[in-house]
Amino acid sequence: MPRLQFRRDSSVSRNSGHKSSNVTWHESRVTQDLRHRIFGQRGATLWFTGLSGAGKSTLAFTLEHKLVNARFKSYVLDGDNIRHGLNNNLGFSDADREENIRRVGEVSRLFADAGLITLSSFISPFRSDRRQVRKIHEDAGLPFIEIYIDTPLEVCEERDPKQLYAKARRGEIKNFTGISSPYEIPEQAEIVIPVHSSPDESATLIFDYLKQQKIIQA
Amino acid sequence: MPRLQFRRDSSVSRNSGHKSSNVTWHESRVTQDLRHRIFGQRGATLWFTGLSGAGKSTLAFTLEHKLVNARFKSYVLDGDNIRHGLNNNLGFSDADREENIRRVGEVSRLFADAGLITLSSFISPFRSDRRQVRKIHEDAGLPFIEIYIDTPLEVCEERDPKQLYAKARRGEIKNFTGISSPYEIPEQAEIVIPVHSSPDESATLIFDYLKQQKIIQA
Repeated sequence: MPRLQFRRDSSVSRNSGHKSSNVTWHESRVTQDLRHRIFGQRGATLWFTGLSGAGKSTLAFTLEHKLVNARFKSYVLDGDNIRHGLNNNLGFSDADREENIRRVGEVSRLFADAGLITLSSFISPFRSDRRQVRKIHEDAGLPFIEIYIDTPLEVCEERDPKQLYAKARRGEIKNFTGISSPYEIPEQAEIVIPVHSSPDESATLIFDYLKQQKIIQA
Repeated sequence: MPRLQFRRDSSVSRNSGHKSSNVTWHESRVTQDLRHRIFGQRGATLWFTGLSGAGKSTLAFTLEHKLVNARFKSYVLDGDNIRHGLNNNLGFSDADREENIRRVGEVSRLFADAGLITLSSFISPFRSDRRQVRKIHEDAGLPFIEIYIDTPLEVCEERDPKQLYAKARRGEIKNFTGISSPYEIPEQAEIVIPVHSSPDESATLIFDYLKQQKIIQA
């Protein structure tokens, strides 16, 4: 994770041009380093990927709660707050799924740039999409941590809290990841969560990883 | 500004269903009130609107710097970090301009929900678009503060730092706000910034307004 100084705007000086004023305009600079120093944490994106029902959002919300209670600034981006708002004009075609992840990746980058520990929870089944999100973070000098929730299909299908797998098996949902559309297992995930670890155990494991990586100072 | 408790997810309890584990799943709840209490600020969106060259981004960056140095979490969303990322697939047709503001409005709402003082700086010439962004904030119980940078066209055109007005006058840029496309003056702006106030003066004025409204505890 390179530690670039990422300036969001350069200092400019220009005359207002108005006859009765002679204002010098300086745009301020808030660098990632300044945010890091003042807030005691580095902005970063933690990207939770895995099958529907794997436990991504449960883990993300558990970790968010743990972080916020420890006074770290954190926020979960997931299907619920994205599909009903920003991406409410996207469906589930291949092109729309790609655009869904592209937008979410860009929003994650903005959140990370703002200094937040951003917990992005999306099935995101395609390697190429995840790779692109990683790239825009690394290009901006922002840590990107891929977390694979390695819950096997048969466990997810047994849980099936929203009865989505049942519907997919009956053909009522098309292109359902794991049933009628592929899930490409991450090859370079920083963290893999095994099926038997509880949300609390997993959240503690990730919390410790963030300390170790000096993303949070606890 | 109503002060609703906005729960992002409800507490659920479900069995994992896997034979060899018996995990109870609890999704955590981080409410706006919890963030408010822990971080000493309420998430809110400050929406800077006005002509190109009016001084919106200069003021937004000045205020961001002032807030961050006072240890408040703040972030500027503006054309530079949005048009090159999230909205890099949008042009300047009427439909694309509307979609541009819609997406930026949704992202502002997410930032405000995360507890940040969000400074959104966009020409946003149409009342209906600004009204819609206000609505999604108020529906979520999040403060929305419209700030009109009331710099007259002749002053903006005299400044013309990027020579955009000159190009628009020569017809090299179509649909340029103020020249060949209307700017609809806000009717319900919470704050109006007059042309002769300096960025520092204006930033101080807004900072004091945020204290008065108990959005920041300074």
